[in-house]
Amino acid sequence: MRVLGVDPGLTRCGVGVVEGVAGRPLTMLGVGVVRTPADEELGMRLVAIERGIEEWLDTYRPEVVAVERVFSQHNVSTVMGTAQASAVAMLCASRRSIPVALHTPSEVKAAVSGSGRADKAQVGAMVTRLLRLDAPPKPADAADALALAICHIWRAPAQNRLQQAVAAHRTAQARTQAQAQATKGRTA
Amino acid sequence: MRVLGVDPGLTRCGVGVVEGVAGRPLTMLGVGVVRTPADEELGMRLVAIERGIEEWLDTYRPEVVAVERVFSQHNVSTVMGTAQASAVAMLCASRRSIPVALHTPSEVKAAVSGSGRADKAQVGAMVTRLLRLDAPPKPADAADALALAICHIWRAPAQNRLQQAVAAHRTAQARTQAQAQATKGRTA
Repeated sequence: MRVLGVDPGLTRCGVGVVEGVAGRPLTMLGVGVVRTPADEELGMRLVAIERGIEEWLDTYRPEVVAVERVFSQHNVSTVMGTAQASAVAMLCASRRSIPVALHTPSEVKAAVSGSGRADKAQVGAMVTRLLRLDAPPKPADAADALALAICHIWRAPAQNRLQQAVAAHRTAQARTQAQAQATKGRTA
Repeated sequence: MRVLGVDPGLTRCGVGVVEGVAGRPLTMLGVGVVRTPADEELGMRLVAIERGIEEWLDTYRPEVVAVERVFSQHNVSTVMGTAQASAVAMLCASRRSIPVALHTPSEVKAAVSGSGRADKAQVGAMVTRLLRLDAPPKPADAADALALAICHIWRAPAQNRLQQAVAAHRTAQARTQAQAQATKGRTA
């Protein structure tokens, strides 16, 4: 599975591509940051982010795009820009029919470090180790994007099993209801 | 001036086109709502909003797109969706090099009703009167989009004068500095 992780932001949008499957060593294919100047108009910054994400999609052709799920609770001053940058990333992926997966910051931290409250340094250290890099990717947004991609690769099997279980449950339910209806029809 | 007003939202994105200049009767050219189903994936909803906004831009070719400025302070539960829908609207406009203007809800209310704390009914009533409509546009998101467009047409002359004044001030400053440099050069 090849995943593009996106740590959304207007000034620095972290992007990282990881390939692999759960339980096997993972490979980093690319990492970087899409930057837009803070003094540019908001609309033009969104256009620049769109162009940047499109380039990453063109170059790496990921099967899934994993984006950080933005909460309005934390860090009110930057959350609007983060929401807007994440919207552009999701739009670019969905337009190409690439599935989008959202993971919360604590899910990502827990996946790579074992703790949902790990700090930036810890996440950077684990990303470096898991991808067998020489040094932690800089800036932190780039490391976070890789952590998102790793998180998705590791969580995906569980998520898929969950979705399959839900689907199986629904099918069984529908069958039981259909049988009940048929019985009712016969006894009526 | 022809303005497309956008009241951003994921479930209902209000859109309205108004033509006119400040101090003259205004004309409504079109009003509507771009809707996306709440049970659809977020990425697909953003794609649907993009398609909807593109259609309005194609049909009406506005000179300016006026979008509600989203604040993270009010209504935390819906603000993320609003920010994401507004990002798509701004992206569509900026991609076509159409200028984007942002106005706060209280600026819009004050422009059409004289009070920044006017309620939905008051805004709807004033939009109906100012555009000489038979009834208030429904839903409220559609009326709000028209109010945004009206607000922009009325505020634009003042905004332009302000921008011109700032530009003139900068030019004058640059000239004074250049003269000072020249004088320094001669006396050195």
